[in-house]
Amino acid sequence: MRPFLDFLLNDWLNAESLTQRPRFAEHSRETFDAVLDTCERIAREKYAPFNRLVDTEEPRTEANADGSLRVVLPQATYRAREAYAESGMLAAAQDYEHGGMQLPYLVEATANAFFGKASISIGANLLTVGNANLLMAHGTDLQKQVFAANEFNGRWAGTMCLSEPQAGSSLSDIATRAVLESADDPLGPRYRLKGNKMWISSGEHEMTENIVHLVLAKIPGADGKLVPGVKGISLFIVPKKLVDTQGQLTGVRNDVALAGLNHKVGWRGTTNTLLNFGEGQFPVGGQAGAVGYLVGQPGEGLKCMFHMMNEARIGIGMAATMLGMAGYEASLDYAKTRTQGRPVGPAGKDPAAPPVPLIEHADIRRMLLAQKSYCEGSLALLLYCARLVDEQHTADAAAADEARLLLEVLTPIAKSWPSENCLEANSLAIQIHGGYGYTRDFPVEQYWRDNRLNMIHEGTHGIQAMDLLGRKVLMEGGRGLKLLAGRINATIEQALQRPELAAHANALAQVLERVGGVTKAAWATGEPAQALANAVPYMQAFGHMVLAWTWLDLSLKAVAIENAALAAGVAGATTYFFHYELPKAEPWLRVVEQRDMTCAELPVDAF
Amino acid sequence: MRPFLDFLLNDWLNAESLTQRPRFAEHSRETFDAVLDTCERIAREKYAPFNRLVDTEEPRTEANADGSLRVVLPQATYRAREAYAESGMLAAAQDYEHGGMQLPYLVEATANAFFGKASISIGANLLTVGNANLLMAHGTDLQKQVFAANEFNGRWAGTMCLSEPQAGSSLSDIATRAVLESADDPLGPRYRLKGNKMWISSGEHEMTENIVHLVLAKIPGADGKLVPGVKGISLFIVPKKLVDTQGQLTGVRNDVALAGLNHKVGWRGTTNTLLNFGEGQFPVGGQAGAVGYLVGQPGEGLKCMFHMMNEARIGIGMAATMLGMAGYEASLDYAKTRTQGRPVGPAGKDPAAPPVPLIEHADIRRMLLAQKSYCEGSLALLLYCARLVDEQHTADAAAADEARLLLEVLTPIAKSWPSENCLEANSLAIQIHGGYGYTRDFPVEQYWRDNRLNMIHEGTHGIQAMDLLGRKVLMEGGRGLKLLAGRINATIEQALQRPELAAHANALAQVLERVGGVTKAAWATGEPAQALANAVPYMQAFGHMVLAWTWLDLSLKAVAIENAALAAGVAGATTYFFHYELPKAEPWLRVVEQRDMTCAELPVDAF
Repeated sequence: MRPFLDFLLNDWLNAESLTQRPRFAEHSRETFDAVLDTCERIAREKYAPFNRLVDTEEPRTEANADGSLRVVLPQATYRAREAYAESGMLAAAQDYEHGGMQLPYLVEATANAFFGKASISIGANLLTVGNANLLMAHGTDLQKQVFAANEFNGRWAGTMCLSEPQAGSSLSDIATRAVLESADDPLGPRYRLKGNKMWISSGEHEMTENIVHLVLAKIPGADGKLVPGVKGISLFIVPKKLVDTQGQLTGVRNDVALAGLNHKVGWRGTTNTLLNFGEGQFPVGGQAGAVGYLVGQPGEGLKCMFHMMNEARIGIGMAATMLGMAGYEASLDYAKTRTQGRPVGPAGKDPAAPPVPLIEHADIRRMLLAQKSYCEGSLALLLYCARLVDEQHTADAAAADEARLLLEVLTPIAKSWPSENCLEANSLAIQIHGGYGYTRDFPVEQYWRDNRLNMIHEGTHGIQAMDLLGRKVLMEGGRGLKLLAGRINATIEQALQRPELAAHANALAQVLERVGGVTKAAWATGEPAQALANAVPYMQAFGHMVLAWTWLDLSLKAVAIENAALAAGVAGATTYFFHYELPKAEPWLRVVEQRDMTCAELPVDAF
Repeated sequence: MRPFLDFLLNDWLNAESLTQRPRFAEHSRETFDAVLDTCERIAREKYAPFNRLVDTEEPRTEANADGSLRVVLPQATYRAREAYAESGMLAAAQDYEHGGMQLPYLVEATANAFFGKASISIGANLLTVGNANLLMAHGTDLQKQVFAANEFNGRWAGTMCLSEPQAGSSLSDIATRAVLESADDPLGPRYRLKGNKMWISSGEHEMTENIVHLVLAKIPGADGKLVPGVKGISLFIVPKKLVDTQGQLTGVRNDVALAGLNHKVGWRGTTNTLLNFGEGQFPVGGQAGAVGYLVGQPGEGLKCMFHMMNEARIGIGMAATMLGMAGYEASLDYAKTRTQGRPVGPAGKDPAAPPVPLIEHADIRRMLLAQKSYCEGSLALLLYCARLVDEQHTADAAAADEARLLLEVLTPIAKSWPSENCLEANSLAIQIHGGYGYTRDFPVEQYWRDNRLNMIHEGTHGIQAMDLLGRKVLMEGGRGLKLLAGRINATIEQALQRPELAAHANALAQVLERVGGVTKAAWATGEPAQALANAVPYMQAFGHMVLAWTWLDLSLKAVAIENAALAAGVAGATTYFFHYELPKAEPWLRVVEQRDMTCAELPVDAF
């Protein structure tokens, strides 16, 4: 993977050019490489060897003397976290003055890819970083100093507490209540929270001195009732253990209790919890109710929480991609070394000839090239998006605004496309292994199980699709879609100059035109129920268009590089994608175009 | 599922008409129904409640006093086997005079579907039946009497020992040797076997008094060398415990030893073993070497073994289908009862309105209807194939020959299409459950894990595709393909008379023509390497055509039935299949037509 990553960073995305910006001026290609080298090494030493272990020895609970539950984790999980925290990666993007490295997000995301490939579930550090970043954006100075800083330095960990058992994706229905206790606590307006939070990753553990929960809850109105909908939602810092303004533990446990663990199909290294807030298991000052400090303004909780949504979703896409890549590498290795059967020649098979490596069989190569096109293509798209995050934050105003808008449109694809297609890649990796791939003696089945999560968390596939077709391609008068079309057309124009790419360029131009037309057709009646009835097929087609564009653009760059094998690989994966994948877009588009209501209108009793 | 099954059996396939044939003359719709009722009940009582248990408490080994290994299984597995054997289903298809029920295969396959849906892995009875059937076809009278009869009556179990660790799908490379010991043993020419067999389902257990292994091995030539290729393969009966001509145990253990278990991702209720034959752990008469009795002629082992191939592959297709169906039912139930979110109306969402059942969301319905079209369509196709098996065995010569040839062409689809698409159905069932679907608290993740096996065993996806495009559509001058086209055209002709189905009929006619043309184009150069380079996409397109035909034919029949909800369901699933699925055939066909060598020709170092 490293040569391809280097190609993406240095040849395609020109990461080094970022060092011309003031924020990154002290960096160079060498410092970027050093970060990647370090992370690649830690991932190899502290993550990869324990990936199966954390699957087998999944988190379990033991009772404390007081009857409360604690989580038991393998030692390897502690070691992996320690190594990650010591690397400084938790604060990779922070200012030097806050102990950070002022790394571009592009380099941070690339470096984190190594950990994802080595063991996606042993660490859940991205949540801690996301939590702290959110406080940096919306917290008071003291909240940043007390909470965010201690997350960045590795002392404490962070969580995101959104979902509730009765309201999975439907945040407007959350029922956790927050009642004001004191408006003038130096850590922020102090509330008492009561409610249950579900699917909380790393919601309880003893790897760090403290855990900083960021919790969505509703402040009841004067009538004591909760406001329906997302407008009533506010955001609170709820530390597991209470702290003072110096960031020291006060010795008082907050009223947050582990109710139980979720036992998952995969991704088992990460503890997933049901948490009870304020049920009185650890009363504070003799009173039930978890102490929480308001972040930002009341009623703006969701807005705050979604501030970091793009990065979080890019992170999920990257997780899916790295699981796919791990399976691709494992199955490529297996296909090169395992001998079995003989290819069919003009005279059939010669049973007296020695068996050949699996990779000599055409269908094995098809399954490998499919994986390559899915996983490397996803990786490229995600780093392109990561580069846009840097543009958004450090480019001039016009370029930053373009980057912001492009990210809005691309993020649902960056999350959903790898989740779906790199899962399929994992299935192909199993298939290449045959019966062995179906056993737990080989790693590929675990990648496949781990990867199944990614279409579900951080907004399901269906939600991404509604976001894309219901919001992103319409917003600002469709300017985001136009912007993307402009970039795609620029690639097409260049590719048309290259005889070997001209056919691909024309194919992409056709699909681009179709996507534009179909978007209009979907909304032709203005009825959301009709427009969005086939939002997922729309997203699938849109994703294939974006990935075809990505591959075409990579091909333009690859012809100029020295590494002939890498160039041939990019050319092959591009051809594969245009011949085998892009034509799938049309069947998906057709049902959207026709606002096909077959599914939506089938009576319930006919199922 | 039962109403749909009854519709298939009684309205669509007219199972009752089989009772006009002498073999089934004592049967009636009532006796068929009684068999289904009994099996449905046993499956509900003895299988379904323990499906999770056999996943959690997977088979493990314990050492016997002599150091050999035995397999420990949950009690529920014993009970399920007992109940199945007591039902008489092991001998369902056998003659009355052999204690059988003389049931049509169609009814036997339908009855077995209930067990597959309740717990696919708790029983492995189909292997015992297949083993005994094979002996009925190729064994001597005494072999039938001693071995087959005791499998049909439930006293012993059977296995199929084909694969070896170094030669998974490549049977021509098996290295198990069989050396003649005595040509005149009453049980058949007696050999001593040495070798290792891998992936043997139920290769060791104590559920039955004895286990009858059917083993492929090679008899060395005069030079002591094994003949390369499949021609040197012979078939042997190798009982775990030696028996006399009366079918009584002699007290001598045969030299077959459990070397270990395979630890699988799913399908855990079925023990999967590595067996050592003839390594001397249980020497017979002081000598290493497992005692085996030749079945049929030397060198015809594979021919014998593949005699039952169609039924075996229909069985795998049915397993995949029933896992899909189990997931469909679970997610349909969840979607009807779980409330979450609100549909988008013209004015957006009203957060003050109560949440609606999941099934009110368009994308949930899409995922349900996709599952329905995959699983019910597969079930219909499989029962159609089962009906062909009965035609082959009991119809007049011309019809029997047609049925044989149609089965040859349809079997790769009957095995591969459900394996691929009902696995996707299981993934959609998880998606409908959201985060809950990713936990082991709900059954859908297990169905998904269990189902992943079906693209691998009994001939991988790739092997099915080579069989279809490399052999089945060519055999007998393409007569099988023409025959199928004739049946499809007959359905099209009828559907053209129905205004509501005419558009589907035309769409299917187009794809049928394309498949014919593309088959020719694939073979235009006569080079197998080019023709077969895209055999899997060909099979995928061919399968979609066959399923579209199946749904269209079901639709023709459904308009006449009384159950309005069922008729609406068939109509909806048909429309779904024609709008959302059939158009996928064209992108698959295009690479076949163009003999696209992108994958086959990419250099190894470019991956």
